[in-house]
Amino acid sequence: MTALPSLDLIRLAAAYADRSLDPLQVVDAVLAGIAARGDDGVWISLVPAERLRARAADLIRRGRGGMPLWGIPFAVKDNIDLAGSPTTAGCPAFAYTPQVSAGAVARLEAAGAIAIGKTNLDQFATGLVGVRTPYGTARNPFDPALLPGGSSSGSAVAVSAGLVSFALGTDTAGSGRVPAGFNNIVGLKPTKGLIGCSGVVPACRSLDCISIFALTAGDAAFVLAQAAGPDAGDPYSRPGPPLGPPAAVGKFRFGVPRPVQREFFGDSAYAAAFEQSLADLEAIGGTAVQIDLDPFLETARLLYDGPWVAERWAAVGDFIAAHPSDTHPITRTIVEGGRGRSAREAFEGQYRLEELRRQTAPVWREIDIMALPTSGRHYGVAEVEADAVTLNSNLGRYTNFVNLLDLCALAMPAAIVDGGRRPFGITFVAPAFRDHYLASLGNAWQRARALPLGATGAALPEHAPAPAKAEGIEIAVVGAHLSGEALNHQLLDRGARLLRTLTTTASYRLYALPGGPPERPGLTRVNDRGAAIEIEVWDVPAAQLGGFIAGIPAPLTIGRVQLADGSSPQGFLCESAGLEDARDITHFGGWRSYRRGSAG
Amino acid sequence: MTALPSLDLIRLAAAYADRSLDPLQVVDAVLAGIAARGDDGVWISLVPAERLRARAADLIRRGRGGMPLWGIPFAVKDNIDLAGSPTTAGCPAFAYTPQVSAGAVARLEAAGAIAIGKTNLDQFATGLVGVRTPYGTARNPFDPALLPGGSSSGSAVAVSAGLVSFALGTDTAGSGRVPAGFNNIVGLKPTKGLIGCSGVVPACRSLDCISIFALTAGDAAFVLAQAAGPDAGDPYSRPGPPLGPPAAVGKFRFGVPRPVQREFFGDSAYAAAFEQSLADLEAIGGTAVQIDLDPFLETARLLYDGPWVAERWAAVGDFIAAHPSDTHPITRTIVEGGRGRSAREAFEGQYRLEELRRQTAPVWREIDIMALPTSGRHYGVAEVEADAVTLNSNLGRYTNFVNLLDLCALAMPAAIVDGGRRPFGITFVAPAFRDHYLASLGNAWQRARALPLGATGAALPEHAPAPAKAEGIEIAVVGAHLSGEALNHQLLDRGARLLRTLTTTASYRLYALPGGPPERPGLTRVNDRGAAIEIEVWDVPAAQLGGFIAGIPAPLTIGRVQLADGSSPQGFLCESAGLEDARDITHFGGWRSYRRGSAG
Repeated sequence: MTALPSLDLIRLAAAYADRSLDPLQVVDAVLAGIAARGDDGVWISLVPAERLRARAADLIRRGRGGMPLWGIPFAVKDNIDLAGSPTTAGCPAFAYTPQVSAGAVARLEAAGAIAIGKTNLDQFATGLVGVRTPYGTARNPFDPALLPGGSSSGSAVAVSAGLVSFALGTDTAGSGRVPAGFNNIVGLKPTKGLIGCSGVVPACRSLDCISIFALTAGDAAFVLAQAAGPDAGDPYSRPGPPLGPPAAVGKFRFGVPRPVQREFFGDSAYAAAFEQSLADLEAIGGTAVQIDLDPFLETARLLYDGPWVAERWAAVGDFIAAHPSDTHPITRTIVEGGRGRSAREAFEGQYRLEELRRQTAPVWREIDIMALPTSGRHYGVAEVEADAVTLNSNLGRYTNFVNLLDLCALAMPAAIVDGGRRPFGITFVAPAFRDHYLASLGNAWQRARALPLGATGAALPEHAPAPAKAEGIEIAVVGAHLSGEALNHQLLDRGARLLRTLTTTASYRLYALPGGPPERPGLTRVNDRGAAIEIEVWDVPAAQLGGFIAGIPAPLTIGRVQLADGSSPQGFLCESAGLEDARDITHFGGWRSYRRGSAG
Repeated sequence: MTALPSLDLIRLAAAYADRSLDPLQVVDAVLAGIAARGDDGVWISLVPAERLRARAADLIRRGRGGMPLWGIPFAVKDNIDLAGSPTTAGCPAFAYTPQVSAGAVARLEAAGAIAIGKTNLDQFATGLVGVRTPYGTARNPFDPALLPGGSSSGSAVAVSAGLVSFALGTDTAGSGRVPAGFNNIVGLKPTKGLIGCSGVVPACRSLDCISIFALTAGDAAFVLAQAAGPDAGDPYSRPGPPLGPPAAVGKFRFGVPRPVQREFFGDSAYAAAFEQSLADLEAIGGTAVQIDLDPFLETARLLYDGPWVAERWAAVGDFIAAHPSDTHPITRTIVEGGRGRSAREAFEGQYRLEELRRQTAPVWREIDIMALPTSGRHYGVAEVEADAVTLNSNLGRYTNFVNLLDLCALAMPAAIVDGGRRPFGITFVAPAFRDHYLASLGNAWQRARALPLGATGAALPEHAPAPAKAEGIEIAVVGAHLSGEALNHQLLDRGARLLRTLTTTASYRLYALPGGPPERPGLTRVNDRGAAIEIEVWDVPAAQLGGFIAGIPAPLTIGRVQLADGSSPQGFLCESAGLEDARDITHFGGWRSYRRGSAG
């Protein structure tokens, strides 16, 4: 093992940066860590050690330039193709060896990440338990008698046990969240289509998402930014907004089920931990809003009681029909349930879903996120083996509706109950394309909770908070809109907030324009004899910006302003034709200095 | 009949305004006109005369205030509920009498329109011919031996024959367009969901649209603006951008099928009329772009060869199974084709459609609209009765793909061939939410073509185009955002519309900036030696403007531009520091002249 307390991206990148580690050492440490755990049910196959070492050596030879995940080890759920490694989907007879990696894996590898191996899962990603696999149940690192959760069981345990930095899972019904909750790690179910699904064995193609397991919300967001992007092989691929590092989170409203809808199936420790989580959310700026969970629960029931099981039949039905004895009996029963469904049922289920989408949409005007238990209860492996279907279904109560309603979700560690032996997770749910907001909230939550990472015992890495980032559009102001100046209220009235105060690059001149009140300066870029001018960058809500700009009089204009921090947001400039009778005040270095100087 | 040459909205509103007519007189004239045509197969039921007269009297008593369709008579296809009138969907045994009007009908009535009666259709809106009905084939007013087109046959004929001002149809496969083409009228198939479908007997619920038949594109746009809006009874209802009167249309690019893909099934008059239409489109500012129609044709085939027929089975299958002898044999055969379809087929069809959506999407970066024959050929009633299925299918070649790909379409009269005896129609197709752009283009097309309205013989009413007034914020564009230029889609995507084309005051210079693609000009105001530069003023929704401006790169800026008409909207300017390596192209007078000149 490495000397690092955990392989989170912050610590590993720091070790690479100060050269206390290199990728070859990390590969060897990862292999040693895997070997040390023995037969833990996590892996279905490992990339051969010599291939991993060659990959590490190649990365060392090429250097870190332009590879944001350089030397970062990760695991791949075994229903996602990794070129040269067999894809089993948890069914040995189904195995094939792809020549091409899944689109998402290829993106991560291009970013410098090292795929270590393929992880165990509920067969054909059907289940939330992790026991429906002929490869043995992945061992929960907190207590081997407890469920690891599924279907992405091996990926979640690999991250929790500190074997890799992150792992890919898939999520159709909750497979990227439930095992995160049971292993005290972060599980990000991104907006459908942000990460393409080419090279994934489908469960329900219209709902499937590749998910990310990581030790921190920041890591999950960073991996998402690398994995996301167009995927010509997945018609459900779609573009989203830019994904930056977690930003600061202000006040927010979180929806919680009515008390009678908070079902924990008798798990009183989970019930108490959830109530505590609600208080903890209020402590970081949240306001609880009670919502009616019923239409969400009705949506959830469509997933297995409705026609969507026919998607599973479309995906692997022919294989199961040809190889009945090679498949898990529960999986076979579930998938065969899609066989007799009619096209009429398929369309009628979609009509009902469309109704439920409309019915649930207004709640998002009242809340920014929903806060739910990731699972209402944790079961033992033996319990589930005794009553597989009911208990599995209980695990999906708070997860099954998310993909059907085109939402994104982030499962976060919330507590470790039973004297530190059993993790409890909370999940934040938001509308499509709010992935970045969820990650920001998860980051704030994780910093406030300060739980150890996974089962590693490591503390959340100390690192400078990410710089404040605009949620709207950044506008650089230089004169009457500066904070405290005459027109600053035009920004405040529009819900804008100050992000930073700095200067332009040394390539501008500042003029006091004739006219007013209010007095106004004009900023203009010059190709020589420029200076740095004091400026404020404000974050203006996108929908408000048009009205703000519409009121700007000549000769002021809005264009790119080059700032000392390397950014170039839109900001106030001035037509050169308007500077004829203006007074050059560049030597003051800014409008406020000029006003103080000229007034004093 | 009234003394008006036609009941178009311009003439009728003018007659109401100068009190030469009142709604009671119009109701009586409409009833007289219907009686004069005798048994023409247009109507399945009429609202009783006493109810119509009471409605007219009530409107007179209340006055016109706030009712944009005050006293305007319209027809309703008989698969759309009108309270108190039976809905048959073209099948007497299916009839029921709704207590509540369809959402769209209720909106039109609230706006003052008068529903005259229910119109004939291909049974259950299944067909494009108009002959699959036990109520007799609606008589094409140009030639009773010719097909009226369907399924909205009665609504189209009612408008063409001048019996009502406009009519509602429905459109799943082309039922709102094909009969418009065969009757020399306008057929608008709006973006799915703009007009709610509550109270409509479904054909394919996921695709069905209420459509509008009118004598002019302006009338269709006006009716759409009244009929559109939220419909709590239709989960597919969705909001769109504001719908104003037709605006000016600048340059545009229209996609046309490759010559070998222009199939007219032997109708050489239609083939010639289509080629002439392409020339006519160029004459109003269009540039033809050849596109590959094959992926659109493959999409079209999904509608009847794929699983979507199961939606028809879901809609009326139980009725048909219980009343086989009460249904049209062809309709029964088609709908029963949905019975044996599996849910797996339904999902697999949707996967294929999703692929085709992705495959066809890029074409909309090359073109603003597609221009297609509404139908490739016109058949006689007798011909179709002899070979009902093949000929019906031929009629859908250019229409079937539109709803599946979430497009909107506008069928326009294009010519009357065979010595004025047979109408030929052209259809403009555009991405969802471009309805207003289509109506504007249709208006420009109709003014240039100057055909008589429907079969009324009336000329297009002379009226000043509605004054184009910004509903959002005016933005002057000078380069790549001009209509027909590379970045114009950025405006159209945001629901912007062209207001006017003019020049700046003679105080600007224009430069071709280095870099690209796309090539861009820079406009800068000068205090002497300026010139007038061609410019377009666009109306950008306020909430959209911020996002638009956020994407503008240096050295372009947004500031006041002084225009020849005395206005000074915000518009594109350029930092003078960015003009160092730029080429002065002021003498061309505008970006388009420069591009033509430099390309030639």
